[in-house]
Amino acid sequence: MEHVSFENVDITGGFWKNRQDINRNTTIHAIEEQFRKTGRFDSFALGWKKGDPNQPHIFWDSDIAKWVESVSYIIAKHPDKELENKIEEVIDHIEKNQDESGYFNVYISVCEPENRFKNREYHELYCAGHLIEAAIAYYNATKKDRFLNLMRKYADYIETAFAKDDITGFVTDGHEEIELALVKLWHCTGERRYLELSEFFIDQRGQNEKDVTQMENSGFVWKPSYYQSHLPVREQFTAEGHCVRACYLYTAMADLAREYNDGELLYACKRIFDDIANGKMYITGGIGPSCNGETFTIPYDLPNQTSYAETCAAISLVFFSQRMLSLEIDSKYSDVIERVLYNGFLSGISLDGKSFFYENPLEIHPDLGRKDRSVKEGYHTHYPAAKRAEVFLCSCCPPNVTRLIATLGNYIYSVKDEVCFVHQFIDSNMEQNGVTVTQTTEYPNNGKVVIKASGAKQIAVRIPGWCSSYRIDREYSVKNGYACVDNDGCDITVEFDMQPVLFQASHLVCENSGKAALCMGPVVYCVEGVDNGDLLWNIRISKDFKAEAVYDPRFGAKTITADGFRQDKTTKAYSPLSDTFDKIKLKFIPYFAFANRGESEMAVFMRIKD
Amino acid sequence: MEHVSFENVDITGGFWKNRQDINRNTTIHAIEEQFRKTGRFDSFALGWKKGDPNQPHIFWDSDIAKWVESVSYIIAKHPDKELENKIEEVIDHIEKNQDESGYFNVYISVCEPENRFKNREYHELYCAGHLIEAAIAYYNATKKDRFLNLMRKYADYIETAFAKDDITGFVTDGHEEIELALVKLWHCTGERRYLELSEFFIDQRGQNEKDVTQMENSGFVWKPSYYQSHLPVREQFTAEGHCVRACYLYTAMADLAREYNDGELLYACKRIFDDIANGKMYITGGIGPSCNGETFTIPYDLPNQTSYAETCAAISLVFFSQRMLSLEIDSKYSDVIERVLYNGFLSGISLDGKSFFYENPLEIHPDLGRKDRSVKEGYHTHYPAAKRAEVFLCSCCPPNVTRLIATLGNYIYSVKDEVCFVHQFIDSNMEQNGVTVTQTTEYPNNGKVVIKASGAKQIAVRIPGWCSSYRIDREYSVKNGYACVDNDGCDITVEFDMQPVLFQASHLVCENSGKAALCMGPVVYCVEGVDNGDLLWNIRISKDFKAEAVYDPRFGAKTITADGFRQDKTTKAYSPLSDTFDKIKLKFIPYFAFANRGESEMAVFMRIKD
Repeated sequence: MEHVSFENVDITGGFWKNRQDINRNTTIHAIEEQFRKTGRFDSFALGWKKGDPNQPHIFWDSDIAKWVESVSYIIAKHPDKELENKIEEVIDHIEKNQDESGYFNVYISVCEPENRFKNREYHELYCAGHLIEAAIAYYNATKKDRFLNLMRKYADYIETAFAKDDITGFVTDGHEEIELALVKLWHCTGERRYLELSEFFIDQRGQNEKDVTQMENSGFVWKPSYYQSHLPVREQFTAEGHCVRACYLYTAMADLAREYNDGELLYACKRIFDDIANGKMYITGGIGPSCNGETFTIPYDLPNQTSYAETCAAISLVFFSQRMLSLEIDSKYSDVIERVLYNGFLSGISLDGKSFFYENPLEIHPDLGRKDRSVKEGYHTHYPAAKRAEVFLCSCCPPNVTRLIATLGNYIYSVKDEVCFVHQFIDSNMEQNGVTVTQTTEYPNNGKVVIKASGAKQIAVRIPGWCSSYRIDREYSVKNGYACVDNDGCDITVEFDMQPVLFQASHLVCENSGKAALCMGPVVYCVEGVDNGDLLWNIRISKDFKAEAVYDPRFGAKTITADGFRQDKTTKAYSPLSDTFDKIKLKFIPYFAFANRGESEMAVFMRIKD
Repeated sequence: MEHVSFENVDITGGFWKNRQDINRNTTIHAIEEQFRKTGRFDSFALGWKKGDPNQPHIFWDSDIAKWVESVSYIIAKHPDKELENKIEEVIDHIEKNQDESGYFNVYISVCEPENRFKNREYHELYCAGHLIEAAIAYYNATKKDRFLNLMRKYADYIETAFAKDDITGFVTDGHEEIELALVKLWHCTGERRYLELSEFFIDQRGQNEKDVTQMENSGFVWKPSYYQSHLPVREQFTAEGHCVRACYLYTAMADLAREYNDGELLYACKRIFDDIANGKMYITGGIGPSCNGETFTIPYDLPNQTSYAETCAAISLVFFSQRMLSLEIDSKYSDVIERVLYNGFLSGISLDGKSFFYENPLEIHPDLGRKDRSVKEGYHTHYPAAKRAEVFLCSCCPPNVTRLIATLGNYIYSVKDEVCFVHQFIDSNMEQNGVTVTQTTEYPNNGKVVIKASGAKQIAVRIPGWCSSYRIDREYSVKNGYACVDNDGCDITVEFDMQPVLFQASHLVCENSGKAALCMGPVVYCVEGVDNGDLLWNIRISKDFKAEAVYDPRFGAKTITADGFRQDKTTKAYSPLSDTFDKIKLKFIPYFAFANRGESEMAVFMRIKD
């Protein structure tokens, strides 16, 4: 199955068009401003000296690279000379400062030049990977190959240093990314060496003595599973360690499984995907519950208040799922992509597009973040921030958000043989290799989708996992979660019934027993203190609640009002159970829109009352 | 109100007689064995040198002191030459090694002699306080004054160093204890200087520049409120910081409020007590929810799974409550003592008396303690241990348990004017200053209490806070939570109705909304996985449950069987709410008896089903 590239897809209206406009008009500029303020752009001049402000961080290269990549995707569809010139300035710096060998890394060059490729945790290949992705994106957008050539030179040097001359202190990077970037570089250049170098890194991971020794000697505090080096990758069947590292690896593993038709890699990827989707993913699509190393933990450990669920981790799960979908037609992959996009990913950016969450909790009680009154900063119990920030010290998420929104077109359509797959329901036009599709929909605010296609014999429309009833105005058969309809070139109308529905988590999730989350279509809802008063844990919703959904332009989506209950106040610390309630109206907003109206309590899962 | 000393009370049968026997016959010897093995006893010879095993810890003196104090209480009522000789050996070491000045401290003497009284966090005065308490207990038990005189000499030196010559690096100790010990020393010796020295420490706390500077200079990581130095004590109205330190301070504050008739101190103590009892105390009487510094946090922050609730903190709350009860006749103080004794204190020791909990969680899921798979030791999310230990590196709790069990007689009776108060319902005889009481009861396994007294005009019997109906076979009037009965010298029979009752926590406690804890009389119950299967969070109890209670000799208390429900298994990570249940029989055991049958899930609060 070939996914249709965003370059061949125009998002023409509705929910995501609005988000793409904000991305292009606001977010990309807001991030640029923050990255200029904090010295990230200037750092590419390699002028920093000890004592100067804004010491470069080990992964600043990747921050700028992801911004360049995002802007490249944007100007590919909306040419913008000013933005292009800003990228050219970055490339000027790189060209001027790149080492003769091809090496380029801001932090190492100005802070620890003696430690080039010595320490797995210095993110050099991670930064290189992002620079490569940026160069490819810029080349595709502009056909200008200066940046691409600089990065090819760097990739060639990496090949020499790691795979040929073995002159480095480690073999595989502590933070994966180079692996998937090299597959892209192969696709872009046709140079098979890059695919083979990716394969080299994938194959070496978890079975190279040098990697383990280097980490041990450097006093690194995490276990090998933290950076997915506990086993050879073909023997890794569970998602382990740092989430973003993990899913970037799994993405590359899936890439290689496809390129080499490698059954062992595919088997590992399938098991890992199921391990995530069945027990390590929040209902929002967020992954990685623990702030300790931003890691996966044990299955069904999905605490609400302390959920880490990094925005970048959600994004990395989209990448992994998308690769799996190209390997195996199964709506479980596109369901996960949808779950992430509308919830745990989108919550990472404010409605105005200017501020971000690094962590995406499922429940917030701001006071808890202030509970360790007698303990100094740094020893506090970790709770996710209750307010969004414009930039982080580790600001990986914001430019990761922009590149995903800019390339959202990648996730809507695929073509296989003479079947055109419609994975996501987004108002859009697509045209590729003689296949055209026009999709008209107000999804997720309405379950009606009209598809008009030419050049394809069949249309396969995903039946979303959340949907229990739907109608299609044709004969259809469902296969792998997709309703297949013969295409006659006329409008095909699909109607997914979209009502507020309570969803429960598995009985294996400790925190959510006796609770449910209100969802409508792909959108997970939440209650906020600002609408419902504080002490949200005292709120109940009944199993047979009545609800009303109304479009709210502030959120670009519907809010829901439902009958509920609030437990009565008690006067004593402990008293015989009274368990009495007042009837109240509950107001739900989309989870992705939480924390846009000041600091407030918030909860996704709420207790059920019979 | 004068509390009757344990020396004048014999616990004659039933629940606590059994516990005192285990304390005397087993626990005191088990602790001795562990303290010998770990070098704690030998350390008093001050022979340790760099490179030797078992380097003394800064508070080993207090471990041995509390063991000596416990044994002294035991031999006061059950003379035992062998045990007495073991104490004499400890005293020999102290006599031989005490500095000419009077100073004695194992750690400082052998490890950092240059740092005598230089660092607030070295627990020197804390250790001194425990040695003083031990010396008083031994003197009272044997009338031998050698140890007492050594400790008087030490106390005199402390007075000189801190209050007169001001030659120390700090003024008040980081860990309170000396303050309450000096009050006891005054009572024992009649030497008012000791009371005044206690007053000096109390008055200086929170308003001495030197203390703050010393802590800051030593790089100590906690805030002043951690060691109750954020405000002058008379301006402290909330319980803050390290729990044990806090309640030892509050105990001494209450002592001084009484000795000096100090209304400001009394006011502070009353507000602090209410702050604890109304919102910072678990239903078990445990206090201090946070492992970060073993501290109080914000009101109503009472998480179940991560509850710290140190055994020593529970004991310190008994001390504080007992002092408050002597200042103000109010059953809220004796209610808290009862709550702690039968639950969060007693859970700290195994049924066989040989092993201990430092932390006393309200909910255990052993797998959660192993959840941080990819993170090295030391970076794990902290969960309390699921298994008891025979000794801890910081083994303050075990000998604190033994001294409280040995002196349980202290908490049963008080006399004021011609009224005899019966606070706790324990099968016992009391005789003091012409007042005698015989109390016959199987409490807590039966609500019937028979009291026969002479020498008192009135008997005031506490009506327990948990009790909603009771009968007394006399006329009575209730005042401050005590039923007052004119004494005619005949049996007075009180019957508290004792049924299994569900208790809810305040609506301000996030974790326990929609949940309840089963209690019977003063005993809080729990469910364990070993009886009820794992995944206890899927268990429900209905509001109108039917229950049966049966005496179980293993626990010395009743177990309860009740009708309940178990939520059905689900197959998917997220699915539309089904919320279906199987009827099951739930088996409850007393909370104090949990974790006596291997590692198992456990829960006190469970979800309610309408």
